[in-house]
Amino acid sequence: MANTKLDYHDPFDGKLGFALASRCNGLIYASGMTGFEPDMSVPEGVEAQMRLAYKNIEGILEHYGASLSDAVEQVVFFVGDAAPAVAAFNRVSADTFGKTPPPCTMIGATALVDPRYLVEIKVTAVDPGAA
Amino acid sequence: MANTKLDYHDPFDGKLGFALASRCNGLIYASGMTGFEPDMSVPEGVEAQMRLAYKNIEGILEHYGASLSDAVEQVVFFVGDAAPAVAAFNRVSADTFGKTPPPCTMIGATALVDPRYLVEIKVTAVDPGAA
Amino acid sequence: MANTKLDYHDPFDGKLGFALASRCNGLIYASGMTGFEPDMSVPEGVEAQMRLAYKNIEGILEHYGASLSDAVEQVVFFVGDAAPAVAAFNRVSADTFGKTPPPCTMIGATALVDPRYLVEIKVTAVDPGAA
Repeated sequence: MANTKLDYHDPFDGKLGFALASRCNGLIYASGMTGFEPDMSVPEGVEAQMRLAYKNIEGILEHYGASLSDAVEQVVFFVGDAAPAVAAFNRVSADTFGKTPPPCTMIGATALVDPRYLVEIKVTAVDPGAA
Repeated sequence: MANTKLDYHDPFDGKLGFALASRCNGLIYASGMTGFEPDMSVPEGVEAQMRLAYKNIEGILEHYGASLSDAVEQVVFFVGDAAPAVAAFNRVSADTFGKTPPPCTMIGATALVDPRYLVEIKVTAVDPGAA
Repeated sequence: MANTKLDYHDPFDGKLGFALASRCNGLIYASGMTGFEPDMSVPEGVEAQMRLAYKNIEGILEHYGASLSDAVEQVVFFVGDAAPAVAAFNRVSADTFGKTPPPCTMIGATALVDPRYLVEIKVTAVDPGAA
């Protein structure tokens, strides 16, 4: 049975300003995630940031016993030129998901919440506990 | 049981050009909402508009017996500089949701549908009637 | 009963770089769709591209036995000025959905994945097989 009660994953106990993910009704919604290291540093380049963003999302999904293979969709917001972001996405997405990554929407943004960020990825996943 | 039949909430009876929300399968999808007053005037400043946008979303969710505490995620699109929008979001979100707001994705947009709008917020919520 | 197992629709068998849609838990998630012809040419003008984008989405939803009348929400990303995009949306959306189109979020983007594209539309739909 699906976990029908809404649950927020807030490991920062209110200090981040929002939950990192929620689970409800068979789905997991992750907050838009950027590419920062555990020490909060941000690497240069959209490709390095994308790899870290997916790694960070993977860590969030683990809280609910899910992984990126449970992703039902992703929305990728990039800052700057589209061509290098698309090229980076093609490489990173294949490395991350293999042959068939989840449905994707890829959109250029004027800015993200911090000027160091070049990409923010929002993933929705299925709750493995709901099947 | 979940309300499995798709239902549109269109209080303008077609005159707005789209439904303000839909309900299906245990979830409520609200249209992206901006910060206008009941007389359709738009206050200056991203913070005032954010407060109104959440108030407007709350009113829409009420149609389905839901409130902002049922939100499973939010996507916040802002126009203009990120820093003041983020600062405003931190204040308004804490006032609106308390300690742990729902998962959030915050993205800079080139424009919204009307140049007076500085922020548009899209909320997905769980249908309280589905639990 | 809902189709609870996650299914990807990848008619290009990995060559596109992501699935065109997924189905899980009573919902269908389509990738952001742009307005290209079957020969991959892209017409000029945001209105022509919108009409094609909806047509392309309709084709994708058909894979799961769904149609645009099953849409629970849509997010429309446009490049360029808002006013002509909004005017085009009002015409195309009425022609496509009739009186009450699904909930809508409409956002200006700096760029899409290819400079020829002026609009990208992301639709989530209910799985007719889940009711």
